[in-house]
Amino acid sequence: DQDYALAEFYRWAIAFLIGVAMGCLGFAVDWGIETLNNFKYNNTFDVVNSEGGFWKPYLTYISISIMYALVAGGLVSFVEPLAAGSGIAEVKTYLNGVHIRGLLAVKTLVAKLIGVVFSIAAGLIAGKEGPFVHGGGIVGGGIGAMGSQTLTQLLRGKWKVQAPRRWGGFFRNDADHRDFTAIGTAAGVATAFASPIGGLLFTIEEGASFYSTSIFWRGFLSTGIGVLTLHFLVECSQHPHNIMSAHFGRYRDFGLYTDSLAFYGSRMFYYVWDLPIFFTMGAIGGLMGALWVHVNVKITAFRHHRINFRSPWKRLLEVAVLVFVTASIWFLVAFWSPCAALPDAGDLVWLEAKDDQDAVVTEEFYAGGGQVARRGLEHFPQLWCPAGSYSVYGQLFFTPLSQALRLIIHLGEPLPPDALDRFYTDTRALLLFFTLPYALMMWTNGVGASTGMFVPALAVGATGGKLMGQLVRAIVRGLGSKLRVSLASYSVVGAAAFMGGATRMTLTTTVMVMETTGALQLIVPLMLTVFVAKVVGDKFGMGMDDTHMAIRGAPVLDEPALSAEQKMIADKLAVSELMSMAVVALPPIVRVRQLVETLRCCAHQAFPVTPEVRRAYDSAEPFDLHGVILRSTLLRLLQHRIGFFSLDPGGDVPPARSHIPTTQRERLRLLERMEQRPLKLRPKEDGERVIRGLTPAEEGMLMDLRPFMQRNPFVVQADASLSRAYRLFRTMGLRHLFVAPPQPKVMGVITRKDIAEANAKLALGRKANLGLTTPS
Amino acid sequence: DQDYALAEFYRWAIAFLIGVAMGCLGFAVDWGIETLNNFKYNNTFDVVNSEGGFWKPYLTYISISIMYALVAGGLVSFVEPLAAGSGIAEVKTYLNGVHIRGLLAVKTLVAKLIGVVFSIAAGLIAGKEGPFVHGGGIVGGGIGAMGSQTLTQLLRGKWKVQAPRRWGGFFRNDADHRDFTAIGTAAGVATAFASPIGGLLFTIEEGASFYSTSIFWRGFLSTGIGVLTLHFLVECSQHPHNIMSAHFGRYRDFGLYTDSLAFYGSRMFYYVWDLPIFFTMGAIGGLMGALWVHVNVKITAFRHHRINFRSPWKRLLEVAVLVFVTASIWFLVAFWSPCAALPDAGDLVWLEAKDDQDAVVTEEFYAGGGQVARRGLEHFPQLWCPAGSYSVYGQLFFTPLSQALRLIIHLGEPLPPDALDRFYTDTRALLLFFTLPYALMMWTNGVGASTGMFVPALAVGATGGKLMGQLVRAIVRGLGSKLRVSLASYSVVGAAAFMGGATRMTLTTTVMVMETTGALQLIVPLMLTVFVAKVVGDKFGMGMDDTHMAIRGAPVLDEPALSAEQKMIADKLAVSELMSMAVVALPPIVRVRQLVETLRCCAHQAFPVTPEVRRAYDSAEPFDLHGVILRSTLLRLLQHRIGFFSLDPGGDVPPARSHIPTTQRERLRLLERMEQRPLKLRPKEDGERVIRGLTPAEEGMLMDLRPFMQRNPFVVQADASLSRAYRLFRTMGLRHLFVAPPQPKVMGVITRKDIAEANAKLALGRKANLGLTTPS
Repeated sequence: DQDYALAEFYRWAIAFLIGVAMGCLGFAVDWGIETLNNFKYNNTFDVVNSEGGFWKPYLTYISISIMYALVAGGLVSFVEPLAAGSGIAEVKTYLNGVHIRGLLAVKTLVAKLIGVVFSIAAGLIAGKEGPFVHGGGIVGGGIGAMGSQTLTQLLRGKWKVQAPRRWGGFFRNDADHRDFTAIGTAAGVATAFASPIGGLLFTIEEGASFYSTSIFWRGFLSTGIGVLTLHFLVECSQHPHNIMSAHFGRYRDFGLYTDSLAFYGSRMFYYVWDLPIFFTMGAIGGLMGALWVHVNVKITAFRHHRINFRSPWKRLLEVAVLVFVTASIWFLVAFWSPCAALPDAGDLVWLEAKDDQDAVVTEEFYAGGGQVARRGLEHFPQLWCPAGSYSVYGQLFFTPLSQALRLIIHLGEPLPPDALDRFYTDTRALLLFFTLPYALMMWTNGVGASTGMFVPALAVGATGGKLMGQLVRAIVRGLGSKLRVSLASYSVVGAAAFMGGATRMTLTTTVMVMETTGALQLIVPLMLTVFVAKVVGDKFGMGMDDTHMAIRGAPVLDEPALSAEQKMIADKLAVSELMSMAVVALPPIVRVRQLVETLRCCAHQAFPVTPEVRRAYDSAEPFDLHGVILRSTLLRLLQHRIGFFSLDPGGDVPPARSHIPTTQRERLRLLERMEQRPLKLRPKEDGERVIRGLTPAEEGMLMDLRPFMQRNPFVVQADASLSRAYRLFRTMGLRHLFVAPPQPKVMGVITRKDIAEANAKLALGRKANLGLTTPS
Repeated sequence: DQDYALAEFYRWAIAFLIGVAMGCLGFAVDWGIETLNNFKYNNTFDVVNSEGGFWKPYLTYISISIMYALVAGGLVSFVEPLAAGSGIAEVKTYLNGVHIRGLLAVKTLVAKLIGVVFSIAAGLIAGKEGPFVHGGGIVGGGIGAMGSQTLTQLLRGKWKVQAPRRWGGFFRNDADHRDFTAIGTAAGVATAFASPIGGLLFTIEEGASFYSTSIFWRGFLSTGIGVLTLHFLVECSQHPHNIMSAHFGRYRDFGLYTDSLAFYGSRMFYYVWDLPIFFTMGAIGGLMGALWVHVNVKITAFRHHRINFRSPWKRLLEVAVLVFVTASIWFLVAFWSPCAALPDAGDLVWLEAKDDQDAVVTEEFYAGGGQVARRGLEHFPQLWCPAGSYSVYGQLFFTPLSQALRLIIHLGEPLPPDALDRFYTDTRALLLFFTLPYALMMWTNGVGASTGMFVPALAVGATGGKLMGQLVRAIVRGLGSKLRVSLASYSVVGAAAFMGGATRMTLTTTVMVMETTGALQLIVPLMLTVFVAKVVGDKFGMGMDDTHMAIRGAPVLDEPALSAEQKMIADKLAVSELMSMAVVALPPIVRVRQLVETLRCCAHQAFPVTPEVRRAYDSAEPFDLHGVILRSTLLRLLQHRIGFFSLDPGGDVPPARSHIPTTQRERLRLLERMEQRPLKLRPKEDGERVIRGLTPAEEGMLMDLRPFMQRNPFVVQADASLSRAYRLFRTMGLRHLFVAPPQPKVMGVITRKDIAEANAKLALGRKANLGLTTPS
């Protein structure tokens, strides 16, 4: 069938488009953050330089921050509450098969991405990657469905924004929608971090409820294209006139791309005795992650009672207060900072050295945060310090969080090894930058603004790692050894340790940290440290996102995360002990009135279809299952009067839009017509409206549910173990599973070989142009 | 249950052990290859230097090569035929649920790994990674089962090498064995390439028939530990006296780790206009891969008829001839090589520069191949050239393949940019090194020796890429531009293009090439080029390993690889059209004689158990399925006389070892006793032996199959689509699926929420120490 080939083509085309779209969004958000940050920091710098003193700069800084905060908070409180937080938990919930209304709306996308620009610029301890996961999911789902209810509504329904089939409007069913959403999340993470492999692995490790090789390959295309688009836009904006001679692939979050000066190989290394220290850092990261989750859960519970989405003003106020507190602390720390002498001229030569292309090293190093004011001195802000010196705390606290992270990992890297010691960041500054953001993270996560938690986790972890490195270095020197200790390695490993402890992702954390920082040679210690962090953290509960999913009561099945004892119980418990026998069934041909009553009485999401309705209702006796029909399908049928018919031709005139399906062909046509209708229906609100729209005449009519029901729903035997049901739910992406009596009737067997041979025969048949063959 | 916690612990411990074991094996094989290569090259060099001329060096070179070839071929022809080739296809077949006898035997491991050492040293166009996939699988399966039949037999069965349960002897069932084998393959690839992430992704993308998050995490631990072990051993052997101050993580196949001199950032870059050229290279890689597969299939078919495993001497002769041809061509090319002037003194300063540690750069560059004879001139062999010049072809042809690959990618990298032009490898040499190995690869794959194909594919691809880079550079210069073209980038992308075209792995190829060469900044072009290679290659058929699986007739289900049309057909075809109704069933209680007859008559691997045996045999009417019992289980029961009993106490004395299970407890004990028996039984050979071992008295007894049958086998409805069956087979790792009549009887429903709530309740119940709770 040509449709299949076309659909296959569009699956790839859509993956490509998702990548391009996310690359553009990633660039736009970066640009927004940079613009807003420049405005904030430049104004404050100007006031400090021209007037000095405390109050005037403070008021400038704080008022701009709160202004940003109001926008960020307002978008969540008054535009779309679902734009709050990172959205990872919600998207993961969706990918696990649970719908959240509005989660994938265009409005949410806009609120989320604009919101995160303002949240970050306001100085919240936040990053952009979580919102990008969510945003990617929306873009993926939206492009996949090739149409949007919001756009349709905006155009007053006059022009239905639904691409026809030949433009790719195939994928309006749940499974496809979820696949594209998953691909979108991968592209989102990839473009947020300029980390294509990390983004793909994120979706494989965390996002997708079930794994499919085709998502894998499409996600691969999508993340690659996404990051390429981002690179291209970055280069176009930085070297608009010589784009053809610009070195590509240089843009990297948290990394220096000018290896000719950065000397990754001689800066990032480790000794064999570093490993136990790294593992200890992993354990600390796991503990810190668990503590963070623990405290944040308490705060979330409090928030749930006192500052929830029903009181938007309170929520907005909380954001403003949080920004006020954060900005004030940051400002005060910078104000009270000790001063230190600026690097000497010899070092500055290196710091402002050009690489072999025309780009200035330090410009890239500092890209995205603050104007490049004085060559080579960008990360040495003078602030209130006398001339010739710089603000030691201001270096970390008076710069965007992501820039501080980059600084902690890489400061001094372009210098020759012997000069490195002079750039190892003040220990007091690191101590402050370790404790304050960590404390504020606990409060920030879950506040009514769009915030991600990866960058803060990386920053706190990197700071802790660098502190540990300084301690180790002091000890090594105290022992009289001349061994160099790589502070950069300690920072990178520390960042991975805390991120692993907070998120419990292993492969993703490793690859993401490696891709973003460029620490390819640290891959083995990164892996093992993250592993330790995960194991230690898991002893105290789940990671942040899973915890928030659990708080929301999302029925997420994460079998491998079960403890050994839970696994044992799942093995020993039978499905029959958990199943519900109170089944509400529908007959294959139903009177509309009866259907409406059923829909009104029962909130079930799906109804089995069986001629033995009475038996299904009343007795524990097994009944014949003909199929299952979803509540949303029923509502769509009712809304559009599809499948209505009337047996007595002498009765009321059937409505113009009614159809009596007779042939298989007619049924397929009907089904297709229904599929072309909008995917989204809000069962709770719209249901009542749809039902009330029916005339009494229509209610007297009959409906044939058979063309629309899903035939052959998955069935499990009653005495199968719970873990069997777990696996089916997870791997098949189910939402319900019918329970058959033990010892089922069977009539034959099919083996792998049968299928594989059929496969070969099908291939042969295709060549011979026979189409369908029925093998022996 | 304590057993569950212990089993969980051992799962991790075994993953750790697999990593350590593979790290050690990886180091040992590297050492072996290096030793044999040193012997071959040093002897030849000596003869060239002392005597010159053609014949004496040629005879030395060729006789050592053929000597190695005889060992490599002999191990396959006379020790273990399964040691031939890479073994990837076979391991993949096994992971897909099809047993191949002896595939995972210790003997195979020994033959494979020693064989690959000699194959590579003999000069075959081969690499070690494929055999490491296979070797890793054997080690993983072996450690997982904590015991080995071979060892037991070696010890004449006196001391059963079977760890008891408390030492981790849990995992003797199929599913666990397969999991550990999969983890082993990951560790194998990881240690062969020093590429931990690439190894893990290999198993996820290619190896495992079904994906499980727990394999993912255990594989992660295993590959990390494996590469760390390898690093540790390499460092110990290179710096035995200052291991505490050695920089770790520097060992990398095909990469230079001394970034302080290699300047990856300024050597590996790309322009935006490079991308279409890269994609063209991807397309060429895909075509070349498809051609390689096509020709190799023809050769394999010829080999199957003429030089198969039934004629070991012929097979050995083929290996010897192939080595003779390969070595002669290589030698002749080197002999007829033009000469070129040696690099000047200024460049040599760089080439022999030390990095900041004590290791000499070029020593690492050249590690593994040939003695470091003259500082800085290792990759400029003089051979028959006059003093002050070097052999241009000998540079690539008179060195091990993996060294040549490294040279092609990195030659000249330690030099300052302006000197780079003087080291861009002669175009004629590249042309020869592109065509000759490509042609010989077609013959080599499938020959009777242990050979892998990744390294040759990478080498040919890198050479082609470098040629393309030289062409592009010539054009750029011809246009009068002063832009530098990165030949290193072209080489790396070319390597990925051909490897992608040959194997059709996307993520794995990208990550593996990136990890092994250090080309982190090329990640996006690598991804997209590999993607193009895959798409183009797939137009012409499957990748090499899948093709070989198909040739062997392994019933492998690779749903996503189906074409759009095949997918459509699978959607439209119903299970019932493929199922076999000729079912051979057994009753729950069976007389031994009847069982023996059934086993003799039917080669089925599994038998349904039903009281309605007659109905199952005779009619198309559905019968009650009580369970399914495997042929291997039946043979084990017969062999050990487990479950035998006799109804009439007046009859023959029951054998001492018989048991009549009465209580559930007794049954479990029996089952456990059976599980303690060796996993492996060769159904064909051993079956007859076991059956003949039964006395007539025993044959008259009864057996109760119920404790041993698998209850609740998977069932699919007859009118479900074939794609449903596909998915169940793949994701559940099944080998057979029973077919139920359409419209099954059901008695209830279970939802995600029920399960997730149960999960929560189970967790609560655990806290309250209640064990089992039955939710409402």
